Amino acid sequence: MTAQPSPEPADRAHPVAPADRAVPTDRAGLPELRITTVTVTPVAFREPPLLNAVGVHEPYALRAVVEVATDQGLTGLGETTADEGHLERLRTAAGAVTGLPVHALSRMRARVAAALGGRTGSDLHGLTGPITAASTVDRVFSPLEVACLDVQGRAAGRPVSDLLGGRVRDEVPYSAYLFHKWAGHPGGPPDDWGEAVDTAGILAQARRMVDAYGFTALKLKGGVRPPQEEADTVLALHEAFPGLPLRLDPNAAWTPETALATARRLEGVLEYLEDPTPGLDGMARVAAGTAIPLATNMCVTAFEHLPPAVARRSVRIVLADHHYWGGLHRSRLLAGICDTFGLGLSMHSNAHLGISLAAMTHLAAASPELTHACDTHWPWRTEDVIEPGVLALADGAVRVPTGPGLGVELDRDALARLHEQYLACGLRTRDDTGYLRRTDPSYRRRTPRW
Amino acid sequence: MTAQPSPEPADRAHPVAPADRAVPTDRAGLPELRITTVTVTPVAFREPPLLNAVGVHEPYALRAVVEVATDQGLTGLGETTADEGHLERLRTAAGAVTGLPVHALSRMRARVAAALGGRTGSDLHGLTGPITAASTVDRVFSPLEVACLDVQGRAAGRPVSDLLGGRVRDEVPYSAYLFHKWAGHPGGPPDDWGEAVDTAGILAQARRMVDAYGFTALKLKGGVRPPQEEADTVLALHEAFPGLPLRLDPNAAWTPETALATARRLEGVLEYLEDPTPGLDGMARVAAGTAIPLATNMCVTAFEHLPPAVARRSVRIVLADHHYWGGLHRSRLLAGICDTFGLGLSMHSNAHLGISLAAMTHLAAASPELTHACDTHWPWRTEDVIEPGVLALADGAVRVPTGPGLGVELDRDALARLHEQYLACGLRTRDDTGYLRRTDPSYRRRTPRW
Repeated sequence: MTAQPSPEPADRAHPVAPADRAVPTDRAGLPELRITTVTVTPVAFREPPLLNAVGVHEPYALRAVVEVATDQGLTGLGETTADEGHLERLRTAAGAVTGLPVHALSRMRARVAAALGGRTGSDLHGLTGPITAASTVDRVFSPLEVACLDVQGRAAGRPVSDLLGGRVRDEVPYSAYLFHKWAGHPGGPPDDWGEAVDTAGILAQARRMVDAYGFTALKLKGGVRPPQEEADTVLALHEAFPGLPLRLDPNAAWTPETALATARRLEGVLEYLEDPTPGLDGMARVAAGTAIPLATNMCVTAFEHLPPAVARRSVRIVLADHHYWGGLHRSRLLAGICDTFGLGLSMHSNAHLGISLAAMTHLAAASPELTHACDTHWPWRTEDVIEPGVLALADGAVRVPTGPGLGVELDRDALARLHEQYLACGLRTRDDTGYLRRTDPSYRRRTPRW
Repeated sequence: MTAQPSPEPADRAHPVAPADRAVPTDRAGLPELRITTVTVTPVAFREPPLLNAVGVHEPYALRAVVEVATDQGLTGLGETTADEGHLERLRTAAGAVTGLPVHALSRMRARVAAALGGRTGSDLHGLTGPITAASTVDRVFSPLEVACLDVQGRAAGRPVSDLLGGRVRDEVPYSAYLFHKWAGHPGGPPDDWGEAVDTAGILAQARRMVDAYGFTALKLKGGVRPPQEEADTVLALHEAFPGLPLRLDPNAAWTPETALATARRLEGVLEYLEDPTPGLDGMARVAAGTAIPLATNMCVTAFEHLPPAVARRSVRIVLADHHYWGGLHRSRLLAGICDTFGLGLSMHSNAHLGISLAAMTHLAAASPELTHACDTHWPWRTEDVIEPGVLALADGAVRVPTGPGLGVELDRDALARLHEQYLACGLRTRDDTGYLRRTDPSYRRRTPRW
């Protein structure tokens, strides 16, 4: 868990009682907002066949909507992934936190950790780096924390960003998220976006993204075509969109040698190169050999990865993701660590719905440490669980909601419809590799591939 | 500011506008709590002649009470030191934050930084390590932030600890703070505590402290007598109070060689040794040669000190002090950094009044990362500015206030009286060395001395 030698206290009686040994009581009799029920509703929403280094997105993305209800009648919202194992852990955690006040976030996290008992999650798709017991706690705790902050904000009449130190910007910049993609899902009709399996396809997609949403930064999901071809595409984007910061994310599909050779062609062109190669050591080797800053959402995905990453100088930018990093307060901690240790800060995104976009936007708004526009899959989704009107992507940015809490409301009809879709679609765990292999049985996942 | 190489973004257009360029507006029309006036009142309270490595405490300690008033009628309290230069910087900052909402803490800090314009404070007494422009901002911002959190808590009907993630303990453990001292101030009568200039005096003081307040940890301020004599005193304390964790703080009065020789006698006896020698390199040298954990409030007193301290393994425990570390939110950040990088966490104290004790107690209550009982000068003070009744030291701990905000109220008569005392006492900057030299003109400050 630590990079430092023997930080244990000396062999003396330990004067500080462990947290959560005694449950605090509310002696002054202030009305507390105690959790009465936690409802976890898995949903599925349609997704295009987006390609990445380990396969292709299935027809539906799975998410879970978390509703935290309190004894004062206020309810808060959270959103997270919905792989079967994660759902099961989330339900275990939900039982453990029921009865706690919504302000007791540190005790809540300790209860979640105790309830999970050291269990470690996994990602079948393998895109999020090594998962540990501690980072599993953070992943499970996150939607509960967000929902409790939603309640706190509603109770206080303040937006969630105000609970995190207050917003430092009215609009949060997001980057276009360009994907290689098929024209449509196998056996189905072409979707609205059409095929993008070469430079021309990506350029057309980027043009439409920029025209429709005003993006001022472009990210290309790579690791799909051979590295030199993807570098060609980046150079073409550079020419077509002069002045727009560009990022490339091959999801660790390259060896350090390939990464260094490819980076050589992209110096002065890329704003940053995200996870070109696996592991802290490989990343450090690449970092030492290129002027392009390396960013990560794969080799630094939990607090315990930070000390070795700092010591080895593996990365210069960390992509925060409150779903992985234990919620909004702990993502603020990550931001402060990055600032303290001279690391830049951007934001990662999985496929998500409006509750997550609201949380991401409040977090980014309240983070002076943010140095780069955030990622979002938002334009790719065509369905949602929140009432429309509050969140919109224009001029490459989302205006920060200013209503109480997250500022978004659940659309119960939509929630019911997407839950039905979850029940009907049959998907229970994200499996990009398996889905690609149904089209191409010869496909094998290899990291690195080139 | 950083320990890492070239963390600057690449030479691309920067997509994220600097914080505070545009002032957010409150579009949803929620009532904000805007700061209307900030009142800074310097006070002086009587102190005994406590000895340390650079001299002796003067007859009065100087503090400033900060009152932040808002347009909704709510007022919050902060407390800080009151050296003349700090007061002047604080008043500059007060003007800069007027008009901001009390939740806009990040923008507030940015405004304070801009108003100070890179000015760097100083401590004439030299007990708090190197001061930089950034740490000067944190020192000035701190009481404003605490007062704003007091307002936030009062508005929400929640204790300040609830704004920091919620308390994980109902009682915060404090350590007895033993001092070598004269019987009384030169020319005055002996005070109630009497003389303590040798082992017998310290033992008697410790006994009274433990009997009166139930302390379960003892800290001896050292750097006053020769190191081997102070080690003798620690060994005598160990014998007299078996099982009680002991700390010794020579305030960097020793060379690394002296520190190593003295530490050898105290292994298995000391819980930790605080700042035996000056500087990160000297501390690292001592740390490598003793099994006793080293703690610090002198070589790690600002965020920029953390990367080199981690890299050199200079310390194993950091003593947080929200007055130095930019308030309660940033002290939570420090705690999270310590936890992430395998460092223990304790808390430093200067002479302080009840507003600071309340803030320290809320912070410690909401810090699961706390590994050691906190320091406090509390038993040495005989006057205060808050109404009595909420804060009490019993069984070595302070119960966490559960009323809204900090949970303490200003005693306006006491404030007026201590302000008159400030005006009358003539002290404007803490000068322990100068005060000792008035008794012993041959006294010279030397760091290290032995």
